[in-house]
Amino acid sequence: MRRTLRHPARIVPIAFLVAIAVGTGLLMLPAARAGGGGPPPLTALFTATSAVCVTGLTVVDTATYWTPFGQGVIMALIQIGGYGIMTLATLLGLLVSRRLGLRTRLVAQAESRVDDLSQLRGVLIRVALLMFWFEVAIAAILALRFAIGYGQRPATAIWQGAFHSVSSFNNAGFALYSDSVMGFATDPWVCLPIALAVAVGAVGFPVLFELVREFRRPACWSVHTRITVFGTGVLLAIGALGVLLFEWTNPGTLGRLGVPDKVLAAVFQGVMPRSGGLSTVDYGQMRPETLVLTDALMFIGGGSASTAGGIKLTTFFVLAFVIWAEIHGEPDVVISRRRISSATQRQALSVALLGVAFVFAGTLTLLTLTSYPPGPLLFETISAFATVGLSTGLTPALPPAAKLVLVLLMFLGRVGTITVATGMALRSRRRLYRLPEERPIVG
Amino acid sequence: MRRTLRHPARIVPIAFLVAIAVGTGLLMLPAARAGGGGPPPLTALFTATSAVCVTGLTVVDTATYWTPFGQGVIMALIQIGGYGIMTLATLLGLLVSRRLGLRTRLVAQAESRVDDLSQLRGVLIRVALLMFWFEVAIAAILALRFAIGYGQRPATAIWQGAFHSVSSFNNAGFALYSDSVMGFATDPWVCLPIALAVAVGAVGFPVLFELVREFRRPACWSVHTRITVFGTGVLLAIGALGVLLFEWTNPGTLGRLGVPDKVLAAVFQGVMPRSGGLSTVDYGQMRPETLVLTDALMFIGGGSASTAGGIKLTTFFVLAFVIWAEIHGEPDVVISRRRISSATQRQALSVALLGVAFVFAGTLTLLTLTSYPPGPLLFETISAFATVGLSTGLTPALPPAAKLVLVLLMFLGRVGTITVATGMALRSRRRLYRLPEERPIVG
Ligand SMILES: [K+]
Ligand SMILES: [K+]
Repeated sequence: MRRTLRHPARIVPIAFLVAIAVGTGLLMLPAARAGGGGPPPLTALFTATSAVCVTGLTVVDTATYWTPFGQGVIMALIQIGGYGIMTLATLLGLLVSRRLGLRTRLVAQAESRVDDLSQLRGVLIRVALLMFWFEVAIAAILALRFAIGYGQRPATAIWQGAFHSVSSFNNAGFALYSDSVMGFATDPWVCLPIALAVAVGAVGFPVLFELVREFRRPACWSVHTRITVFGTGVLLAIGALGVLLFEWTNPGTLGRLGVPDKVLAAVFQGVMPRSGGLSTVDYGQMRPETLVLTDALMFIGGGSASTAGGIKLTTFFVLAFVIWAEIHGEPDVVISRRRISSATQRQALSVALLGVAFVFAGTLTLLTLTSYPPGPLLFETISAFATVGLSTGLTPALPPAAKLVLVLLMFLGRVGTITVATGMALRSRRRLYRLPEERPIVG
Repeated sequence: MRRTLRHPARIVPIAFLVAIAVGTGLLMLPAARAGGGGPPPLTALFTATSAVCVTGLTVVDTATYWTPFGQGVIMALIQIGGYGIMTLATLLGLLVSRRLGLRTRLVAQAESRVDDLSQLRGVLIRVALLMFWFEVAIAAILALRFAIGYGQRPATAIWQGAFHSVSSFNNAGFALYSDSVMGFATDPWVCLPIALAVAVGAVGFPVLFELVREFRRPACWSVHTRITVFGTGVLLAIGALGVLLFEWTNPGTLGRLGVPDKVLAAVFQGVMPRSGGLSTVDYGQMRPETLVLTDALMFIGGGSASTAGGIKLTTFFVLAFVIWAEIHGEPDVVISRRRISSATQRQALSVALLGVAFVFAGTLTLLTLTSYPPGPLLFETISAFATVGLSTGLTPALPPAAKLVLVLLMFLGRVGTITVATGMALRSRRRLYRLPEERPIVG
């Protein structure tokens, strides 16, 4: 144990494991399952992992299988996972020791990627405040809509609003309906607040703070903020246009909707791979080309230090600029007048290729364990690894071993790249700099 | 045209285009098609591209669709493609101008990756001699076996032996039987010479020459040779064990064979993804997990400056060592006591990720053009891009637009990475060296 604590990078996976264990224990209580008796251990483990890792894949129907107590546990696990176990651990450390040790600070830095250690305590509080008020605002809008538009009683509407707000902002992908949020496919008053919460949550706090501070001076934005804002827009457009183009005539998805509703659904599904995981159309009915495009968008994921998963936008765009420089024979990789250090390039490369390796190994394992075709299994693997939670619907029917593979993928996807990045951050060495340099966050 | 010639990197794609055009023209002659009348242009274009790019995907049955003249044209195109249009162009330049201009030399260097320009002419001749004698030896063994074991007449046996020897050594994947070489699945006298020729051809001439020179002193081998020899062995073992494990009980493939024949077929198919493309078992009957594993092996491919395709063994292993160094926080990437320059790392990264991008774009396009599921289309895409030629059998039934996509993938796969690498090689700049350094070939 002391050995472990000497390596701060190991605190993050251990904290996640503890949260998953506690969550599994709580979900196994008879009070958690509707009808009583408690769920099988694998169901509790899968659900707890999916909640803590803010994934949203489910083996049972969240709406009917769990009691309000069970759903409350899931919501709490989502909140803990989204805010970051590490952040809570740091706060706990603060309460216990009344001081921020270097070790705690380094871990916190690795998770939230804030360069200035002295601002850490303030950042922790600001993150919590921003999260709280944003979630309250979205919850209020949703609750009003549920109450006015759907005649829900106030207590029900507030509970529904709060759960879906927390699930959206934390990119968790859980919903209190058996068909995700498909019932609201044509209701912009539900779709747009949820999509906004997912998009903002997937941008990440470093970018949000910079945007709040420098919103009117884009010239001052850091490379990391530029990539994240630009990348979010580009991937949203590609995702929405892809869904529109591929699904326009598909009777199982957009085909039965009018043109404005087609656009609303396409925008909603354009946001979700980064990595919200809710759906207003049935992914089990999607055309294979839409699923393959979504595979790529999910794998790329959202912003660094956000509630989103995937290899992250900055990783993807740094690699794209590396290739650009290579093709044009330029010695340095330059993004908006800043040279990207070779250390950052190597980190981006490692994060991306380790991701490919995990997804490949996961898909191959699921192929040997089941008789489903490769397409849907790849989709489920990437959805788990990138903690997205979109599904063609085959997860509940998987054999136990395959479910455990998904549990492992969700855990590795949420913790693995962080661990690697932390290990790298703690051991990085000084290099010679030839130009003013900046290190966008990768992984 | 003068502009083009000023950029030597463009000579390679243009030479390939010329060879494909000439081949298409020859195959369109009435004398090429059995029964006369000449084939449709797309069939001739597809076959010529597949032959020049030594891929082996076919839209018609090579054995019955073409006359001996047509088959001879295919064999010649294979030989030209395998030896390298560039090499022939250089020789042509020699005959015309009696001197080796710098431009020709640089192109030849980029293709055959020989660092010492002054040895270029000697290398061209040694490559031709090695190729010729090796092909003659394999052809003789095959011809003897065809004559003695299968009662073919001498002329037929020699023709069959020569064609399959050329096809094997050049990793072309063409066969003169309607079912590839499945009829010889249990005959080691046919399988082993073919597998040997494919394996040796896929190792590449720089490595072969070094092995001939330094066979008894492995301590003197270059990093490039070590990676290629080690990688060939590892991927062969993974491929063979994978086929054995996944197909052992499959009645459509290994299930009906005895244990020794199972092993023979597994070894044969373990060699073929790198990138021979012949098959003694039916890939249309393979389990999906075998196809996914083969996807990965085909994508990695064979040795640099060989007749094999894919991103190349050195690219893959350099990237693996980069990740290893990154995970362990080491500033330098070291392979057997040699530091790998960051320029080489960047080349490897670019080659691999451009390959992923091409395969992704190809698969997505084929999905929109056809109604086949993603698994087989991904397999066909990688097989074309990595110039392997293995197929689950759907190529002939594809619509014309999809066939053109495969033509483009074969061309890009054979020429694209070379072009990129050449562009990089011609513009690389001096860097500061901290350690004795070596640049293994990537791409
Ligand atoms: K999610
Ligand atoms: K081939």
